[in-house]
Amino acid sequence: MAQSTLAILGAIAALTPSITAAKIIDNNASPPNISTLFNGSIFYTWRPRSHILPPSGQIGDPCMHYTDPVTGLFHVGYLHQGAAGATTDDLVTFKDVGKDPTFIRAEGINDPIAVFDGSVIPYGINGTPTLLYTSVSFLPIQWTIPYIKGSETQSLAVAHDGGANFTKLKEGPVIPGPPFPVTNVTGLRDPYVFQNPTLDAAANSTNGTWYAAISGGIHGEGPSQFLFRQYDADFRDWEYLGQWWHEQANSSWGDGSWAGRWGFNFEVGNVFALNTEGYSAEGEIFTTLGAEWSEVPIIPQVSQFREMLWSAGNITTSSNGSVHFVPSMAGKLDWGQWAYAAAGKLLPANSSASKASGVDHDRFISYLWLTNDNFGTDAFPVVAQGWNSVLTTTRELAQGIISDVVDNDLVNETASWRVGSRNSAAGTVELVTLKQTIGQEVRAAFISNATRTFTQSGRNISTTAPGYGNTSATALDFQQSPMSRFFLMTASISFPPSARNSSDLKAGFQILSSEYESTTVYYQFANESLIVDRSNSSAAATTTPGLPSNNEGGRLRLFDIAGSDSGNSSAIETLNLTIVVDNSVVEIFANDRFVLSTWIWSWYDQSTEISFYHEGSQAVAFGNVTVYEGLVDAWPERMY
Amino acid sequence: MAQSTLAILGAIAALTPSITAAKIIDNNASPPNISTLFNGSIFYTWRPRSHILPPSGQIGDPCMHYTDPVTGLFHVGYLHQGAAGATTDDLVTFKDVGKDPTFIRAEGINDPIAVFDGSVIPYGINGTPTLLYTSVSFLPIQWTIPYIKGSETQSLAVAHDGGANFTKLKEGPVIPGPPFPVTNVTGLRDPYVFQNPTLDAAANSTNGTWYAAISGGIHGEGPSQFLFRQYDADFRDWEYLGQWWHEQANSSWGDGSWAGRWGFNFEVGNVFALNTEGYSAEGEIFTTLGAEWSEVPIIPQVSQFREMLWSAGNITTSSNGSVHFVPSMAGKLDWGQWAYAAAGKLLPANSSASKASGVDHDRFISYLWLTNDNFGTDAFPVVAQGWNSVLTTTRELAQGIISDVVDNDLVNETASWRVGSRNSAAGTVELVTLKQTIGQEVRAAFISNATRTFTQSGRNISTTAPGYGNTSATALDFQQSPMSRFFLMTASISFPPSARNSSDLKAGFQILSSEYESTTVYYQFANESLIVDRSNSSAAATTTPGLPSNNEGGRLRLFDIAGSDSGNSSAIETLNLTIVVDNSVVEIFANDRFVLSTWIWSWYDQSTEISFYHEGSQAVAFGNVTVYEGLVDAWPERMY
Repeated sequence: MAQSTLAILGAIAALTPSITAAKIIDNNASPPNISTLFNGSIFYTWRPRSHILPPSGQIGDPCMHYTDPVTGLFHVGYLHQGAAGATTDDLVTFKDVGKDPTFIRAEGINDPIAVFDGSVIPYGINGTPTLLYTSVSFLPIQWTIPYIKGSETQSLAVAHDGGANFTKLKEGPVIPGPPFPVTNVTGLRDPYVFQNPTLDAAANSTNGTWYAAISGGIHGEGPSQFLFRQYDADFRDWEYLGQWWHEQANSSWGDGSWAGRWGFNFEVGNVFALNTEGYSAEGEIFTTLGAEWSEVPIIPQVSQFREMLWSAGNITTSSNGSVHFVPSMAGKLDWGQWAYAAAGKLLPANSSASKASGVDHDRFISYLWLTNDNFGTDAFPVVAQGWNSVLTTTRELAQGIISDVVDNDLVNETASWRVGSRNSAAGTVELVTLKQTIGQEVRAAFISNATRTFTQSGRNISTTAPGYGNTSATALDFQQSPMSRFFLMTASISFPPSARNSSDLKAGFQILSSEYESTTVYYQFANESLIVDRSNSSAAATTTPGLPSNNEGGRLRLFDIAGSDSGNSSAIETLNLTIVVDNSVVEIFANDRFVLSTWIWSWYDQSTEISFYHEGSQAVAFGNVTVYEGLVDAWPERMY
Repeated sequence: MAQSTLAILGAIAALTPSITAAKIIDNNASPPNISTLFNGSIFYTWRPRSHILPPSGQIGDPCMHYTDPVTGLFHVGYLHQGAAGATTDDLVTFKDVGKDPTFIRAEGINDPIAVFDGSVIPYGINGTPTLLYTSVSFLPIQWTIPYIKGSETQSLAVAHDGGANFTKLKEGPVIPGPPFPVTNVTGLRDPYVFQNPTLDAAANSTNGTWYAAISGGIHGEGPSQFLFRQYDADFRDWEYLGQWWHEQANSSWGDGSWAGRWGFNFEVGNVFALNTEGYSAEGEIFTTLGAEWSEVPIIPQVSQFREMLWSAGNITTSSNGSVHFVPSMAGKLDWGQWAYAAAGKLLPANSSASKASGVDHDRFISYLWLTNDNFGTDAFPVVAQGWNSVLTTTRELAQGIISDVVDNDLVNETASWRVGSRNSAAGTVELVTLKQTIGQEVRAAFISNATRTFTQSGRNISTTAPGYGNTSATALDFQQSPMSRFFLMTASISFPPSARNSSDLKAGFQILSSEYESTTVYYQFANESLIVDRSNSSAAATTTPGLPSNNEGGRLRLFDIAGSDSGNSSAIETLNLTIVVDNSVVEIFANDRFVLSTWIWSWYDQSTEISFYHEGSQAVAFGNVTVYEGLVDAWPERMY
């Protein structure tokens, strides 16, 4: 199709993104430079079906979620022309809170410049959902430059119209800044409200007190969570309890292998408590947080790296009465370089979704922002696409337990797990970590609503030559492959004990493959990593700037698990993969404790094939491979 | 003149206030209801010549004065469409800082609603005059209603263009509110910046530290001055040092005779140090302040009374290191009910004005706001007048000494003086108080520039019948009277010792008199009061609402002064009056320690006569009566 025709049709598409727009792009021919296409020309090309994103345009951080105590509906919020939201009664399908989903906009007295992240007290002022958010008055704001005093303040707004609008209180910020003398901050934003009885006891608070953890840091000192405590019933005043969590500038958890760097500034910190089922007020204290850092020299207004971390720990009380969060483990909430800004919320057992699905316990669910353009710094063709970024699939967090782990060197590390208990007789330990799984209703819906489900026979693959996995050897192809780029895939890979010391073993799958494109997802023992090789993922990457083809990867340790025969034999923990492919959005879950979310911008329609992937001198066993094709339309009421 | 003609000419006058407007009003005929006249019709009728007021429109609180360290010019500031200002090199004549004298306006990020009072650090950020002012984001604000959090914050702006404009810093308020848990304030405004070595020592501060005293109070507790301390060279952060002065709600100094009530909320507090010459860093600590209160029941949004007070005292340091101001005396800075909101400033010896006049010491000069319409609550015809309110004449404050006072019951009282030293042998004390005088350059100019000066012979008047003083007995008339309502008058009145116990003695002057109108200024021993009887002051008061004819009055004690013969004889202190009549503005200074400023809205051109006034059974001696007619045009460069 000629460029000129494309341009004209593209212009139409921009006005009304429609199937027309998708049709004019020929995904059976080599790609053009997409950046040159008109607004919205490729609106549907990579648009996911089951994910949360606004009708069009940019999505930023998820935030401001809550369950409306009146309706039981769960509200998912996200930054979009201020902040916008959608409701769900099943965690699977969503409904915009209004024709315009934006429920709060900037340009008020407290926020003339911008609305940043916030969080909601569901039963707040007058029993109404009440938002505490960062109201922005001055820019620029970044940890790499001096802080403009008063640039970030924390203000209140109250839900109206069932959450379709939040009305700002006619008063100044309830937290107007960091308390003196904490004046030279690197940031002070993203207030996260929570209740916690353990903290109540430690801080000598009334039971049920609300707290706000505000993320930031101090120039020259390092990142912090600033803790505030509710002072009055109307949340007008908040008592500063100090930096309840502070890390040295640019330090790391252990050697950094498992949780990157604490960096120079914290963002989007959440604080919550989990047991093995999900949320539990009395559970272990967890936090999710973003960490910003750069290599030296630090360039003003450039935050080179962002880490999306989690940590769990204990609350201690100092002799002077101040409370502190002391981490006992920390890890990556998502290893995807473009997955960031997680925001989670208690989903109560009495929410509509939980009641409908029969989940009788409280849960904690979380969403991440998956940026399309590297936090706005890359040249991704967002104009041609007409939308920008998504939230990751609804994720449940819980306390994760790994049982019967052989008590060897593999477990003794400053890492993303801790030893919960030790069975000296058996020579085993029970490890505790963060459990992350796809929301159970979502997983169930992807399975039950699949338009096509097929199982690939298991398979053992022994020694292969280096590079073998990258050949298009038909012998490795699946018997069936998806016909689209919308599917959920599960699979397991078992490794022999000898794999542990292999320097060359890689095992996994090639997905989204055709003769033109292919993406390899594999585990590599040499560096205990799960890799997504995107070097050949997109034909469009060669024609269009801003479609990176670098590898994504994350660290996952497969432990030795004691056998049932009293620990005399052990086996390497099986790698259990769940892969969600929702068009360009690819999320890889492993062993309920590893997630990597990324983009695969497949160009050709036929790039849907799957095959086994194996390289190296050690044999592996693939099993339990099932593909559920179709996913679910998350937005049944949207026009597009 | 017919009303319709007036209306048309009035409309013209409103566009260009000019002599024309004044001429169409016939001040030889009975007054109309002025409220019905067109805009600006009476622009000149009551406009003063020597006072500070904007070219037209409303003036509010004086504030933001400073001496520019570069030019040496003294800048007088006042609220006007934000805040406006004028410069002076002689304290007598003034020049607007720009064609539009407003140098800061509301509607910035920090002050979207209003700019309230502030004060200037002359050598501030980068050595430039730097304003700390109250930036207002929400209304209403009053001590009678709950405080809207964040309604008043304190922000910075820096002088440009020689003070013709102040540029707001692109950052949030430097003092964003009262520090937790001081949250339920009655007010938090009018930051007054000052330096003080005594406070430096008491608060363990670096020498030369700047402080900001912010006026307000706490609901249910009472009025306070909140003290903050400079934290950095750029004045970005201020350390809260506590309520360095707090009084119980609605309490008074002593029985209230000398200093009214502390009320419920402080406003416009100034802090400075004086010796007997004027300003002295090492001198006695003085403060001027406004106090707001009401009788019960307190009506929301109605501040029934405002007191313009001064106090002097000591700085103490508590065991916990906090500093406090402890009053040792307090009084009224002005007894006029409509004189309020004083703002003063150090005038250094090296200022242009001081150098020109040869005053070789630092001074502290102050201005009050004299409201035309009872703080906006009365129906005064401000539209017809085209301007509203003035500042009082430049006033110098110093430590006042009253020597050789007989040590009797008259001196031992919780009052507006304190006993400085006691001479037991002589039976005398030296009293210390606040000295208030007309700025010496102003007084000198009024005298030297007078177009007509005449002296009235002294006179003894003995017993007169009750009511005698109010007759138009020609025997009491001055030999000459002013031909205009622009003059300075000095006079003294001596009373015999027996006057002390007189129940009926009143002695003073009738001024601004004609067959239609007359105002009596007299001292009355029975209540130690200096009274301004306005009951017959204005013929217009009977035709026009908003021209009150109530008496004004204030308390002045005339002490017994020991004679030169070792205290064996004593005499009542002579009453020394200085009266400034600048058209409708009348200011009465007595004995360098009493001031009463008020309005006299004479209607008839011929109401300029002066006569002695005496009533009662005791004789008095009038002397030293001189009238200097003409005053000075304070605004030689203004078109009108």
